[in-house]
Amino acid sequence: MSKAKSFNLALVQLSVTANKEINLHNARNKVLQAAQNGANVVVLPECFNSPYGTQHFPQFAEPLHGQSAQALSSIARDANVYLIGGSFPERADDSAASKFYNTCTIWDPKGERIGVHRKIHLFDIDVPGKIRFQESETLSPGQSLTHITTPYGKIGIGICYDIRFPELAMIAARKGCIAMIYPGAFNMTTGPLHWELLQRARAIDNQIYVAACSPARDTGSEYVAWGHSTVVDPLGKVIATTEDAEDIVYATIEVDKIEEARRSIPVTSQRRFDVYRDVAQGVEV
Amino acid sequence: MSKAKSFNLALVQLSVTANKEINLHNARNKVLQAAQNGANVVVLPECFNSPYGTQHFPQFAEPLHGQSAQALSSIARDANVYLIGGSFPERADDSAASKFYNTCTIWDPKGERIGVHRKIHLFDIDVPGKIRFQESETLSPGQSLTHITTPYGKIGIGICYDIRFPELAMIAARKGCIAMIYPGAFNMTTGPLHWELLQRARAIDNQIYVAACSPARDTGSEYVAWGHSTVVDPLGKVIATTEDAEDIVYATIEVDKIEEARRSIPVTSQRRFDVYRDVAQGVEV
Repeated sequence: MSKAKSFNLALVQLSVTANKEINLHNARNKVLQAAQNGANVVVLPECFNSPYGTQHFPQFAEPLHGQSAQALSSIARDANVYLIGGSFPERADDSAASKFYNTCTIWDPKGERIGVHRKIHLFDIDVPGKIRFQESETLSPGQSLTHITTPYGKIGIGICYDIRFPELAMIAARKGCIAMIYPGAFNMTTGPLHWELLQRARAIDNQIYVAACSPARDTGSEYVAWGHSTVVDPLGKVIATTEDAEDIVYATIEVDKIEEARRSIPVTSQRRFDVYRDVAQGVEV
Repeated sequence: MSKAKSFNLALVQLSVTANKEINLHNARNKVLQAAQNGANVVVLPECFNSPYGTQHFPQFAEPLHGQSAQALSSIARDANVYLIGGSFPERADDSAASKFYNTCTIWDPKGERIGVHRKIHLFDIDVPGKIRFQESETLSPGQSLTHITTPYGKIGIGICYDIRFPELAMIAARKGCIAMIYPGAFNMTTGPLHWELLQRARAIDNQIYVAACSPARDTGSEYVAWGHSTVVDPLGKVIATTEDAEDIVYATIEVDKIEEARRSIPVTSQRRFDVYRDVAQGVEV
């Protein structure tokens, strides 16, 4: 880990509508507001520019250099922040056979794109009588891990369901990331069960910061998001959170706390890779 | 996973004194009581026969066929249960240079030993102003993973600090274990921070049952245990727990719930071992 710097993180728990123009406009205002309040790194939620639903993805999908990407670039530059741009449905090419992805683009304060994460684990679940959702009906999965580089340290990116797979955070921490950040949209079944638990698990097992940024809850939408955007510290404690309404969650990320946690409970140096494999070994990111 | 059977699990949150005879006698009574109440599998806490402290380990240490092991064998047979015998300090041989281990022995209802787990990750921590403990001052670490076979399914064993290392539970679940059971003794610093969180994390990430069995709290001892012996289901929900006094925690382990959880949220079949390695691949247990 390089020189430790503190920074201010903001999670924009955005109200997302079915109108893309309104969503982009609202995202811009909220990110600028977060920056005015001192944020250095700002996060938008999963599917920040369109409603979340398999039938909507192809309709709202854009190329990596489309309208939403251009908007995110401008917002990052105008706000002078690192912007983890939630996700939008991505159309890979212009053909009728194009693949679609659930994609997070990440932008530096100059408006340059510094990372692209395509959701690796598609959200295909079926809790009888509660919720069924099959992202794979229209989406294809990403094929690689994503770590971005900032002046504060490297940050690993996952999208929503990716958080259920501990390998992403294990690899990120072992490759020197100071945090895992997940734009996400858990629902009214999995939210109360697992949203906070999974973030705290990733944090304590890897002694890194973890944050997850949800859309605000809209009980009129087909997919009702849990909200509760949250930041967890390297000891697994929730240091900032909110309820379900539109809001901005702020937290100071004290990078020194990572080393402090690792000195106190030095699992980082106590792992027994002579007894089991290191999941991060040989992985290129 | 073979034919799914439910069974009754009991965690004996034993009061442990500095007197080994009393501890063995008390353990016997409590396991018999649990069996009378219908338990099929009974768990004792870490260091169930002696006080927990590096200076005590060599003094209380016994060989694998010593007094405490013989007592556990008799208890398992007389109670007609599978007995996960907490742990005791083990002396590897009779030489002055003998190594010592923190060792869990596991017994079937005939009193036959069916497993031995030597704590793999020694508890060496130093939280400034709160707690310092260095098991490695007198103990050596175990070198292998332990899965026992019961009529209900395979069960993975870890001891206390082993729970901080997610690989043990990941490998156990992927090798077909239905549960991870950890005799443990968290303290008044790490207990409230992490005892429950780590159990819930292991359960939800692997969709297995997880249980941890602590000694009762003795505020007069050098090392004050947190207590709160707990059982967590495959969805990460605490289904049985207690406070800090001597107690027996009972839970029905419904093995079908594992498949139910995995059908609802099928992470088991969605892992991306084309993107990251499988920590269980190639591991022999």
